[in-house]
Amino acid sequence: MIVRDRPSVWQLFVIYRLSILRQIVWQVLSVAAFSAWVVAASQRWPATFRSFSVAPFTLLGIALSIFLGFRNSACYERWWEARRQLGALIGVQRSLARLTRQTAPDSDQALAENAILHQIAYTYSLMAHLRDQPTPAEAAAYALPPPASAVTLRNLPDSMLQQLAAVYASMMRRGNFGEMLYCRFDERLTELAAIQVACERIKGTPTPFTYTLLLHRTAYAFCFLLPFGLAQTFHYGTILFCSLVAYAFFGLDTLGDDLQEPFGNGLNALPLSAMARTVEISLLQILGRTPLPLPLQPIDSILR
Amino acid sequence: MIVRDRPSVWQLFVIYRLSILRQIVWQVLSVAAFSAWVVAASQRWPATFRSFSVAPFTLLGIALSIFLGFRNSACYERWWEARRQLGALIGVQRSLARLTRQTAPDSDQALAENAILHQIAYTYSLMAHLRDQPTPAEAAAYALPPPASAVTLRNLPDSMLQQLAAVYASMMRRGNFGEMLYCRFDERLTELAAIQVACERIKGTPTPFTYTLLLHRTAYAFCFLLPFGLAQTFHYGTILFCSLVAYAFFGLDTLGDDLQEPFGNGLNALPLSAMARTVEISLLQILGRTPLPLPLQPIDSILR
Amino acid sequence: MIVRDRPSVWQLFVIYRLSILRQIVWQVLSVAAFSAWVVAASQRWPATFRSFSVAPFTLLGIALSIFLGFRNSACYERWWEARRQLGALIGVQRSLARLTRQTAPDSDQALAENAILHQIAYTYSLMAHLRDQPTPAEAAAYALPPPASAVTLRNLPDSMLQQLAAVYASMMRRGNFGEMLYCRFDERLTELAAIQVACERIKGTPTPFTYTLLLHRTAYAFCFLLPFGLAQTFHYGTILFCSLVAYAFFGLDTLGDDLQEPFGNGLNALPLSAMARTVEISLLQILGRTPLPLPLQPIDSILR
Amino acid sequence: MIVRDRPSVWQLFVIYRLSILRQIVWQVLSVAAFSAWVVAASQRWPATFRSFSVAPFTLLGIALSIFLGFRNSACYERWWEARRQLGALIGVQRSLARLTRQTAPDSDQALAENAILHQIAYTYSLMAHLRDQPTPAEAAAYALPPPASAVTLRNLPDSMLQQLAAVYASMMRRGNFGEMLYCRFDERLTELAAIQVACERIKGTPTPFTYTLLLHRTAYAFCFLLPFGLAQTFHYGTILFCSLVAYAFFGLDTLGDDLQEPFGNGLNALPLSAMARTVEISLLQILGRTPLPLPLQPIDSILR
Amino acid sequence: MIVRDRPSVWQLFVIYRLSILRQIVWQVLSVAAFSAWVVAASQRWPATFRSFSVAPFTLLGIALSIFLGFRNSACYERWWEARRQLGALIGVQRSLARLTRQTAPDSDQALAENAILHQIAYTYSLMAHLRDQPTPAEAAAYALPPPASAVTLRNLPDSMLQQLAAVYASMMRRGNFGEMLYCRFDERLTELAAIQVACERIKGTPTPFTYTLLLHRTAYAFCFLLPFGLAQTFHYGTILFCSLVAYAFFGLDTLGDDLQEPFGNGLNALPLSAMARTVEISLLQILGRTPLPLPLQPIDSILR
Repeated sequence: MIVRDRPSVWQLFVIYRLSILRQIVWQVLSVAAFSAWVVAASQRWPATFRSFSVAPFTLLGIALSIFLGFRNSACYERWWEARRQLGALIGVQRSLARLTRQTAPDSDQALAENAILHQIAYTYSLMAHLRDQPTPAEAAAYALPPPASAVTLRNLPDSMLQQLAAVYASMMRRGNFGEMLYCRFDERLTELAAIQVACERIKGTPTPFTYTLLLHRTAYAFCFLLPFGLAQTFHYGTILFCSLVAYAFFGLDTLGDDLQEPFGNGLNALPLSAMARTVEISLLQILGRTPLPLPLQPIDSILR
Repeated sequence: MIVRDRPSVWQLFVIYRLSILRQIVWQVLSVAAFSAWVVAASQRWPATFRSFSVAPFTLLGIALSIFLGFRNSACYERWWEARRQLGALIGVQRSLARLTRQTAPDSDQALAENAILHQIAYTYSLMAHLRDQPTPAEAAAYALPPPASAVTLRNLPDSMLQQLAAVYASMMRRGNFGEMLYCRFDERLTELAAIQVACERIKGTPTPFTYTLLLHRTAYAFCFLLPFGLAQTFHYGTILFCSLVAYAFFGLDTLGDDLQEPFGNGLNALPLSAMARTVEISLLQILGRTPLPLPLQPIDSILR
Repeated sequence: MIVRDRPSVWQLFVIYRLSILRQIVWQVLSVAAFSAWVVAASQRWPATFRSFSVAPFTLLGIALSIFLGFRNSACYERWWEARRQLGALIGVQRSLARLTRQTAPDSDQALAENAILHQIAYTYSLMAHLRDQPTPAEAAAYALPPPASAVTLRNLPDSMLQQLAAVYASMMRRGNFGEMLYCRFDERLTELAAIQVACERIKGTPTPFTYTLLLHRTAYAFCFLLPFGLAQTFHYGTILFCSLVAYAFFGLDTLGDDLQEPFGNGLNALPLSAMARTVEISLLQILGRTPLPLPLQPIDSILR
Repeated sequence: MIVRDRPSVWQLFVIYRLSILRQIVWQVLSVAAFSAWVVAASQRWPATFRSFSVAPFTLLGIALSIFLGFRNSACYERWWEARRQLGALIGVQRSLARLTRQTAPDSDQALAENAILHQIAYTYSLMAHLRDQPTPAEAAAYALPPPASAVTLRNLPDSMLQQLAAVYASMMRRGNFGEMLYCRFDERLTELAAIQVACERIKGTPTPFTYTLLLHRTAYAFCFLLPFGLAQTFHYGTILFCSLVAYAFFGLDTLGDDLQEPFGNGLNALPLSAMARTVEISLLQILGRTPLPLPLQPIDSILR
Repeated sequence: MIVRDRPSVWQLFVIYRLSILRQIVWQVLSVAAFSAWVVAASQRWPATFRSFSVAPFTLLGIALSIFLGFRNSACYERWWEARRQLGALIGVQRSLARLTRQTAPDSDQALAENAILHQIAYTYSLMAHLRDQPTPAEAAAYALPPPASAVTLRNLPDSMLQQLAAVYASMMRRGNFGEMLYCRFDERLTELAAIQVACERIKGTPTPFTYTLLLHRTAYAFCFLLPFGLAQTFHYGTILFCSLVAYAFFGLDTLGDDLQEPFGNGLNALPLSAMARTVEISLLQILGRTPLPLPLQPIDSILR
């Protein structure tokens, strides 16, 4: 995720690395080149182009804007829901650790502490699961010893939740607390499972492919037809204008694709590592550990 | 559901099988043919066509875009809600199995295991129910023996939930756990029932027919009137332009119809079988079974 | 609610009975007649009409489309929320019946059965309440005997919920279950009460009258002014075009009015009777009754 | 809130008292007068006006429509949320009264009855609090005796909730019910507190002032500039057209302001008194009182 | 947050300090100056400008409006969610204090009182945390003595929640109440933690930077290109018109930026201090303290 101050007016026009333009520069240049060719042709054979007007393009362009607007809105909603789920994850982890800490009798402090550390390991493991990366070393360091059958696991994070549940159940059986409090633990675990499933859903189900395809195609067709409507009246201004339109439309289209993958590696992907670190810091603080690890910082304005 | 990588720019224009175009190719061709006829007529009797301008079509076209945009947005919401409900189903099933597993004493492990397997059967049965298909064989293999009256059932999945509830109630009566934990089981069942009802709602209640009809008709009328507005200025470009507009409008309209039936057989229908398999894998993993079945893979980019 | 297959392309243009057109046919014809008069006048006094252009109508028409679009979206949301509430009703009724059935000891089976039948009666009674109809006979047959004071009731369904609560409380006092399970029953009742209140809200609070009035008036003014803008360029095509615009705008406006009353008698009203029957079937299935009643079927494509 | 039948086509044009027009009649007349002056000027100095065209106004007008549309949508959402919260209030009050009634033993019937009456008083008091009115007499009649410190209260409704909580706590201490049921009472109270806070939020936080100001100003500027664009082509039709546009834009803008204050005194304000009466009737019915008070009726189509 | 009466028509045009105009005055003036230059150039070299028309700008301008509209809607949603979360905070604090007050036996009144005062300290501390300000003195006065390790804290508010949890756990251990009631306390704490995390999310995750950048750039490009399209027809009216468009577009864009930071120092930032004071008053009222502090008042129409 990009973390930086609001750009000044001047910066607004020189930022390139963090801009969507970097991803669509070839498309925009193609439109510019094609526009140049169309303008040249319209100068050469003015009669053929005379009757073209920009009005029908207005119709198509506005229709396309509306559809792009709705799609972008839907993509943003997905991205924001992903962020909301991961934010809720942080909150649930804090509340679960608090509950563990307060309800464990002195005799079970070590077990409680291990359970809280295991929560950190779960978080790192879930983040890696969502990014299709191997589980990082810090996760292994915090985790409870894995059950023997772990080698055949399909879903490591879910299995780690089972381990947590087993710890709480053993605490209940040893009489630390009754069914009522066990249900509170189970509630928190159920929330974690729901968050995980929601993230898996967002990861696994993009907006319908045919919708994306339809909009991509219409946007391409529009941007490559537009010069015909403008060449006669705008002459070489057509090149600038069509490039600007291509920038706006391809830019929004590509941005929508980007926002669709909040767990990916794009510029707008959510900072899963930083969020896992936040959970780590919060839970270690609850355990009273010092010194606490530092929060992750953005590198070149990108927080991962 | 279509599962494939983001298409390259080139692929964007050659994909046909997975495109909405396949469903509307006749409509688009009709508009093209009609446009050709109108252009020919306008060349023949230019006086009649002279006064037509494209401006009023802009008005109508933008109005139509706005209405189509809202409808599409509503259809997408339904589709996404269906996905959300089924995702929640996976989460609830995992949490219920975890609860069953952790709270069953050693003496009731066999019963607990049967209950978890029955959950898998419920999932398969619900998916078949939503698709109006017969319950698949794997469901029967996992299910608890059906009650005698099963022959008269109207709603098999709901009846299977009752069986689960009976198992948990019998566990409570045998003293495995108290009312508090029984309530946790009941909560999960209540959530499953709510998910099932939500899916039945989405399946049984399309967007209002009169709305759909109104938009269909206006879209048709618009696409077949548009050539009159363009013929005089765009000449044979009219054919291309009208086809493009028809592609965009009929495409969105048809896509909306498609998204309305997330449990159907369309390209964008949700992958119910793959999701049932996910539940199966998750629950067998909780039971420690090996080897786990493989996740379903897309066939020709379609995940069912 | 209209229940029918997706119409074929041909049917699209011949369906009349289920179309919004039936409700607005006089308005559309008036616009057509008025347009004809305007066109005739413009032929007679061309000088007066010469300067009118369609451009400002584009502005007004698009503004109107945007406002109509938002209002329609809001009306659809209300309709869909009503459907969601009634769907939730079905789910809650099933879950409540399941709970009653599983927790009743053998000694209280008769009472439990009566309570479940009373739930059916409640559903029928609520549906009649929402439709301002007298409670149907089937409700009375299933209901528990009414309390003596019933004659002065303002809100029959709410009173029937009280009766259910009294049954559960008496079961708790007889020791069938403890406070914990009683709370589960109370939760379901609270949900039923919330659903009922939500339906009463949707029924009793339409979208603000001044908003509706503003849009109605603007739509009328627009459709009757539009011919002046078109007559000069479109000649007799004006009649067709203005009728189409009137069809789209009046149609959407009227559809919004229709969707606002999901418990009414319109074509798009929700099938309350069919849903009550669904609850009846589900609950009788839970009781193991045979033969189960048949689901209601649409008559002339209308499900009531 | 306006409660009346759908107006007939004829009434549509004669309703004045319930129309937004009454609030904006001076603005619309100003625009009309100014348009008349502009048209006269354009007749006098045609050369100056010749080059003005309506096209840029289309751009600005549509932009304004979109922004107005979004703002209106947000204002409507607030209004509808206020209605939803108050509807939920009714449901919670019924459920709380039901719970009190069913769980009170015979020995505590009087206390339970007083608590239910106090709920009615709370409702009236909350409604008055939201309307910045003094608490009505009926509230005092139903209320429990106020605590001694009441004279310094800042938030009377919240203090009345405390009194209810104290009643339930005393019932628990006398052994009427255990912690579990007390928690149910506390849940209902927590919901009431949340509803109250949500209403206070809607009352105290309008849509951002700068947003409102920006739209007001742009709407004014647009309506007073539009005549310049139309005068040359529409002549005296400009007056009618600009008035219509002013009616639509100022109307929507003012309607947004109105909907923002759902607890105020406007035509679209929610009928707080009628809703408090609904709660009163529902709770007295639960207590079996006769005769029940009558629901409030609209006066001159306005329900307060 | 700006708190003032609805401005009169006259005030509408003279308010400057509270207007978005103050933040964009240089941009608007630049556009005006540039327009003047373009108009002068078009008078000097009319041939070059002759062919430019405003139609393509209409297309681009409407597209931009749609995208700005969606972004603004998203920014407003964030702002409103922040308000909703803080409103919920007030409600939860009241409910938690009520619970503490009612369940504490006479022997633990002092502890209960300290816990309630600590809630006030938590609120002040959270508000300061969200504003990146040092915790105010009043928070320290109300707070329980901090644990020894406080010097290394990363998240002070979360640590204060832990202290509250410890108090409730100690009350449970001393037998004030059972697990059931402890769970109610834990529920409220979990809600507080969720609210805190939601606020941290809104604070830490702006709308995607590339989206903002894309819209900023397109808005700038549009406003500086527009004069070319208008100069030939509008002459010096271009300056006024372009300034108005720049005002509307830059204004909305900047407003979106403002609304994105609801915990900042902008005009539209939420009144965190006033809300903390509201909590303070509510909780002191519950404790029966007199005299209660006064609510914060807006200074120069700004409530902080």
